[in-house]
Amino acid sequence: MKKQNYSELISLKKKVGLLGSVSELLGWDQEVNMPPKAAEIRAQEQGVVAELHHQLFIDPKIGKLIKNAKKEKLTKKELANLNEIEYDYKKAKKIPSDLVVAFAHTSAKALEVWKEAREKNDFNSFTPWLNKTVKLNKKYAKIINKKRDPFEVVFEDYEKGINVKEVDVLFNKFKEEIVPLIEKITSIKKIKNNLSKKKIPVDKQKEISLYVAKLIGYDFSKGRLDESTHPFTSCYGRITTRYNEGWISAILSTIHEAGHGMYEHNLPIKHYGTPLGQSRSLSIHESQSRYYENHIGRSKEFWKKILNKVKKTYDINISLDEMYKLINIVEPSFIRVEADELTYSLHIILRYELEKDLINNRIKINEIPKIWNAKMKKYLGIVPKSDSVGCLQDVHWAMGGLGYFPTYTLGSMIAAQLNYKMKSEIPNYNKKIEKGDFKEINLWLNKNIHSLGCQYSTQELIKKATGEKLNVKYYINYLTEKFTKLYNL
Amino acid sequence: MKKQNYSELISLKKKVGLLGSVSELLGWDQEVNMPPKAAEIRAQEQGVVAELHHQLFIDPKIGKLIKNAKKEKLTKKELANLNEIEYDYKKAKKIPSDLVVAFAHTSAKALEVWKEAREKNDFNSFTPWLNKTVKLNKKYAKIINKKRDPFEVVFEDYEKGINVKEVDVLFNKFKEEIVPLIEKITSIKKIKNNLSKKKIPVDKQKEISLYVAKLIGYDFSKGRLDESTHPFTSCYGRITTRYNEGWISAILSTIHEAGHGMYEHNLPIKHYGTPLGQSRSLSIHESQSRYYENHIGRSKEFWKKILNKVKKTYDINISLDEMYKLINIVEPSFIRVEADELTYSLHIILRYELEKDLINNRIKINEIPKIWNAKMKKYLGIVPKSDSVGCLQDVHWAMGGLGYFPTYTLGSMIAAQLNYKMKSEIPNYNKKIEKGDFKEINLWLNKNIHSLGCQYSTQELIKKATGEKLNVKYYINYLTEKFTKLYNL
Repeated sequence: MKKQNYSELISLKKKVGLLGSVSELLGWDQEVNMPPKAAEIRAQEQGVVAELHHQLFIDPKIGKLIKNAKKEKLTKKELANLNEIEYDYKKAKKIPSDLVVAFAHTSAKALEVWKEAREKNDFNSFTPWLNKTVKLNKKYAKIINKKRDPFEVVFEDYEKGINVKEVDVLFNKFKEEIVPLIEKITSIKKIKNNLSKKKIPVDKQKEISLYVAKLIGYDFSKGRLDESTHPFTSCYGRITTRYNEGWISAILSTIHEAGHGMYEHNLPIKHYGTPLGQSRSLSIHESQSRYYENHIGRSKEFWKKILNKVKKTYDINISLDEMYKLINIVEPSFIRVEADELTYSLHIILRYELEKDLINNRIKINEIPKIWNAKMKKYLGIVPKSDSVGCLQDVHWAMGGLGYFPTYTLGSMIAAQLNYKMKSEIPNYNKKIEKGDFKEINLWLNKNIHSLGCQYSTQELIKKATGEKLNVKYYINYLTEKFTKLYNL
Repeated sequence: MKKQNYSELISLKKKVGLLGSVSELLGWDQEVNMPPKAAEIRAQEQGVVAELHHQLFIDPKIGKLIKNAKKEKLTKKELANLNEIEYDYKKAKKIPSDLVVAFAHTSAKALEVWKEAREKNDFNSFTPWLNKTVKLNKKYAKIINKKRDPFEVVFEDYEKGINVKEVDVLFNKFKEEIVPLIEKITSIKKIKNNLSKKKIPVDKQKEISLYVAKLIGYDFSKGRLDESTHPFTSCYGRITTRYNEGWISAILSTIHEAGHGMYEHNLPIKHYGTPLGQSRSLSIHESQSRYYENHIGRSKEFWKKILNKVKKTYDINISLDEMYKLINIVEPSFIRVEADELTYSLHIILRYELEKDLINNRIKINEIPKIWNAKMKKYLGIVPKSDSVGCLQDVHWAMGGLGYFPTYTLGSMIAAQLNYKMKSEIPNYNKKIEKGDFKEINLWLNKNIHSLGCQYSTQELIKKATGEKLNVKYYINYLTEKFTKLYNL
């Protein structure tokens, strides 16, 4: 009775959260199951749910309850929940509905134009739509806070616990150290191995994907594994992978998504729908998938455990050392999603620098191809042979999302820092991975990340887990050590 | 502009309908895909969607728009739509929310108790909950219309286009003719064939299910076929079947559900969410599934088309005549869902008579087992060896649904009447089935049933399609002719 406003607020927010998860199911089903001619109804269903979700989200009742709940005697956790709810509510309240509509219409059209532009390698046809997208982002930033750097504002939609100045420092330091490392490696003769191109039947691949997901601790009583065009995690931790991009890619995608999925599964269900039951941020989410993908899925220890089963199931022959080299080949390439572990983050930094300059009017839309190619040359030593495999390759900007990219690399950085800490805290860490024993690793992540939801800010969460704020040295040291050894530098 | 109220009403109703179809997806996913530990969240999601659906359904705005739309110059079709909307709205408005809650709570608990009672063959433990259920149905009927026979009121929730007096006449006539026919058949030595018990691998069964669904015209660009514990159709005509009850049952279930699915697929999509875009009634829906299941799926012509493929795929050997006999064996049995085509409807009539007497206080709850068994003896010549396979076998009453059962048999009756009409209108009807050419049949059903949604009442629809109201003679004649020939009576 004492915290009546808080309780009422939470029960309202749970409804909003549940309606959000209904929308997730509509989306999941669309990607995984939906027959093509059901698309029209599905779009209408999504529209109705989105409208109701928005109405509930900005219901003035929530504003009143927030105000009154502040006067109640709340625990620290409850207060954290309240603050998160207030942040979301106040921001949502500022956004005029015509801007929401403009974003939806523009991104729908921009997506269409972008697809054709990429296909035809015609950046010019995309420029008016990218221009509209950037303008809408600027307008949005101004409405939210006209005094701040607009990139800071849009970036906060994806990661509000690390500020842009911090990101600049992290990314610059990373470039400084890793660009020379890549140069050194690319000057060496390349490892050639065509085994990764071998076609493996889907049912065999599925068998291995299920095996590795289960092995690392993904809980199939809460989630499931399906196939989709692009791997993703949604709907209370359901994961998808794809089998048509090669068997190594399929395994790594499964492990990556299982990392996301386990985070979702371990969020405290009693807080489902409220910030305490939600993932902290995109960077933290990505840290979970990258941790499993890179520190487990690309480690020699893990492959020591799974290689025999993979070899037998896929009828291939390769030694552990060769396999380890194969999944860790460094080779600068044009396409971000196909990049290796070492070069990947430079693809991200390039995009981050460009989108920041774009929204701040430091560069013009039509300069993008030139600048893109110059940065590719500078960071990776190669120049895309066309814009299709250059500045037109990603969907993010076409969808209206400026400021999303950096969360991928922030995730990798956090992952490396978590990995470093776990190594020091969990006895026989490598041995346990070799044995496929992930119990302690999962408990550690659950305790230090998953179970905490949005109780702490991103930086607080990292500090509580590892003893310090996000520090790029762990990522740099990990990469340097690993690839120096691998390439005998 | 002239019909502004009508237009606004329709757009509101579409929202309500779309939210209903969202709830269908939640349910479909639960049966087909959902991992067990996602159940808790799913129940909460369903709760939120149901609550919003109900709020929108009885929004006073709808009442006002109905009133104003009546003054607008509407077409006949629009008027039909308006009348259906008004009927639903007025009824929903009458139901107090505490009754809805009581129904939900009682059926949840009753379901649990029923499951255990059935397992332990303990009817007494179920009586208090069946009692509550019957009482709630009476209370509901009184609220809707205290002057009418309460069974008429609850029956209208499932079929409002055929009245109970008509059903009585149809069912009594049916009993009169068919009970003696069954007696005659059961006095003859039984056909024995163990081939139906052969275990066929699921992937082979799935192959045949996909084949027959496609053959009869089920559109996989709109729907899909999955596996579930109980076969059902939902979510814009998606169908399920089951493979663990024998290969014949799987094929017939698939055909049955495909009949439902094609109805859903052919409803006019531009009216989706409003009565003009909705199926007419449960009886009409069931007429579509029973038409395909009985008049196609159990016909010699159809098996002439598919038998070779089935034999090859399942590695079995059987002649067409033997196969036709096998799928049409008449054998009185205890379980409704396993009953053959001839005895099935007597299971239904038994239940119909019981539930009608129950709600009208003509019998007491504790008399059910006795009356059940006496009717089984009278109609089918057998007495269940326990209540588990007698009056405790079905979920319907436990779920609170009195008045649902008769729609199954009404569906079979309508199907026979449609079949008779099609035979006379479609040239070379039997030959076309033999060839697997369902184009004209599907066009006929589409034109006369599917595309009309709720434009006409059930009886009007039947009359428009066949030239007369529902007449049981077509069903009786069809069964008599078929089984007299089959059993050389």
